Amino acid sequence: MARINDNYLKLKAGYLFPEIARRVNTFAEANPNAQIIKLGIGDVTEPLPEACRHAMIEAVAEMGDRTTFRGYGPEQGYAWLREKIVQHDYQARDCDIDASEIFISDGSKCDTGNILDIFGKDNKIAVTDPVYPVYVDTNVMAGHTGEVNEQGEFEGLIYLPIEAENNFTATIPSEKADLIYLCFPNNPTGATATKEHLKAWVDYAKAHGSIILFDSAYEAFITSSDIPHSIYEIEGAKDCAIEFRSFSKNAGFTGTRCAWTVVPKTLTGKAADGSNVELWKLWNRRQSTKFNGVSYIVQRGAEAVYTSEGQAQVKALVNFYLENAQIIREKLTSAGLAVYGGIHAPYIWVKTPHGLSSWDFFDKLLHTANVVGTPGSGFGAAGEGYFRISAFNSRENVEEAMKRITEKLKV
Amino acid sequence: MARINDNYLKLKAGYLFPEIARRVNTFAEANPNAQIIKLGIGDVTEPLPEACRHAMIEAVAEMGDRTTFRGYGPEQGYAWLREKIVQHDYQARDCDIDASEIFISDGSKCDTGNILDIFGKDNKIAVTDPVYPVYVDTNVMAGHTGEVNEQGEFEGLIYLPIEAENNFTATIPSEKADLIYLCFPNNPTGATATKEHLKAWVDYAKAHGSIILFDSAYEAFITSSDIPHSIYEIEGAKDCAIEFRSFSKNAGFTGTRCAWTVVPKTLTGKAADGSNVELWKLWNRRQSTKFNGVSYIVQRGAEAVYTSEGQAQVKALVNFYLENAQIIREKLTSAGLAVYGGIHAPYIWVKTPHGLSSWDFFDKLLHTANVVGTPGSGFGAAGEGYFRISAFNSRENVEEAMKRITEKLKV
Repeated sequence: MARINDNYLKLKAGYLFPEIARRVNTFAEANPNAQIIKLGIGDVTEPLPEACRHAMIEAVAEMGDRTTFRGYGPEQGYAWLREKIVQHDYQARDCDIDASEIFISDGSKCDTGNILDIFGKDNKIAVTDPVYPVYVDTNVMAGHTGEVNEQGEFEGLIYLPIEAENNFTATIPSEKADLIYLCFPNNPTGATATKEHLKAWVDYAKAHGSIILFDSAYEAFITSSDIPHSIYEIEGAKDCAIEFRSFSKNAGFTGTRCAWTVVPKTLTGKAADGSNVELWKLWNRRQSTKFNGVSYIVQRGAEAVYTSEGQAQVKALVNFYLENAQIIREKLTSAGLAVYGGIHAPYIWVKTPHGLSSWDFFDKLLHTANVVGTPGSGFGAAGEGYFRISAFNSRENVEEAMKRITEKLKV
Repeated sequence: MARINDNYLKLKAGYLFPEIARRVNTFAEANPNAQIIKLGIGDVTEPLPEACRHAMIEAVAEMGDRTTFRGYGPEQGYAWLREKIVQHDYQARDCDIDASEIFISDGSKCDTGNILDIFGKDNKIAVTDPVYPVYVDTNVMAGHTGEVNEQGEFEGLIYLPIEAENNFTATIPSEKADLIYLCFPNNPTGATATKEHLKAWVDYAKAHGSIILFDSAYEAFITSSDIPHSIYEIEGAKDCAIEFRSFSKNAGFTGTRCAWTVVPKTLTGKAADGSNVELWKLWNRRQSTKFNGVSYIVQRGAEAVYTSEGQAQVKALVNFYLENAQIIREKLTSAGLAVYGGIHAPYIWVKTPHGLSSWDFFDKLLHTANVVGTPGSGFGAAGEGYFRISAFNSRENVEEAMKRITEKLKV
């Protein structure tokens, strides 16, 4: 009899977004005239940059001629895209990353889960709290945790709270962690990490032989030159960090699908016999065996991000969402709420007033302003008492939502 | 110290295609005027169907307008594509498959590897020999095998020879296997499975509670109405089989990337507590957590395969490669070689003459006719003494390669 992976049974039901949908639907049925505005989900809303569309149309045309047709591409991605990434995103920031260390993929979500394939079962895992749920769930599926408790915490994981009390930094633990997930600019809090903070993590990782899994999918939203876009801006990071990057949130590729992972050749992990093994070789083998590369057409679209037109169009897109974020910050503040994030990130992290629970604030906002956000408790126990508002929407919707909140929400 | 997945160290080096490249390069350097024709790799060569290109260009245009822009799509694929697949590939063949049981992905290679995520560690795995190496390597990576022996066989796997002696069928083992990989039309042998043969497998699987992992990426090449395209044409298969399908080899999507996996809701596996768990729920959770769906643009391209223009264009593509296969079969036969496959598949499986090893025949063909194929031993121990010729090439190259073989190869 075929046996299942029992670890899947430890997973909590995907509670957050279904529960949001349930409450919204119930409200909408009872209030058919309410114009509900959704600022909940982290998905882009504005058109794909023209440079990317133009490049994809050209690529489709190439596929129609047998002399320019492309079959299987390299599993690691085409060299022309990997080289552009290295040049613009790493060498331009004095990060010594080689094109061969870039692996193009169809998404950072996939990669942050798949990366566990190359690691052993006995690693101690640290995640922040609140956290992007994929980091936790993929570790549960891989059997790296015990059962879940009532607060939604899995036995065996180290949780690192990031909250107002510690200025939204990921406090370095006293115990040893082998794999550490860090995401800055942070989803969901919108917090950033300074060079000093990341340097402390790199020093910790090097001291313990740990690997940092650094997710910087939101780096394009950084508006200050002091804040690092890549962990490789930190000295020593090439010896202890894997980085995940994406075209989803800068160029609006959430439905087009292209991302990359950086695995420096200097990284090693320990084998059972005590020897050090290059992680690059393992990831290269993993991708060659279990992946067949990203669509040629999509890779050409991603390449166009690095043209001068593409760069200008991406900058305009990011600025548009950042202006939304600025409007949200201002209006919520004037409504009497304490807000965090939203300066270097498309997410505004709101402290619920008067000790309201995240879900109670969700209901209050829905019922009084007909605005939908995301309860912070859905991202982890330390997210209780917070609420995420996303800047991904039209200007009109953002302004209308904020108008209603300032006029109707009694804080 | 971060620990690696030691199972990766059991993998053999990716020997086959690098060794082919090495021998071809050595020969080319010594014979700079030789016009080498490559009939080795299973990659398509002809342009993408016009219907698919047209649909993708329209989809790119939609991405340029915020009213038709698409962000994150369903991880399982868009309903309109899943419904077309069900209608044309299943309901039209009297297979009772629902659109909700179709999961769109970026490739069957990925899915045949990823599917192991939902199964436990203690399953007994059966593969054919010769075999598509991904089935074996992903099981090695997942820790489902022991070490490899000198014949390239991994301890703990059940190998099912498919060879001339058993008429290229996958003989049902006397021992119990929990997961069984079957690929028909077969890569690399080009063999097909009759309904009776598949029925025997379905009966075996149902008797043992096994799951068949059925790869029918080459079903479009079937030219006889007697041969099943889908395992769900066999009664009872919905209770014991997962099916992998692809747009790669019918519509030439090897570089465009779209495929699907069918996980019927009637399938179950055993949990540690003895209960039966729906595999659909596990795969749905796996895909929702570790995948973000296929590019909207690519899914629109795949959908166009099911228009009347698309169907005609795909048929013409497949017929073109099948005519190549027919030419190869005839010419190799007239050259005195025993050939198999190539009637319902783009692969011709050649018995090497006079007991030559697969690699010796590779060298002979390269040196006398300057034609490159793939040594059968690269696909498994039972492939020794065989050789794979692919029909994926231009008519001109196929005809020239066959002319040289019939004129120059002394069998």
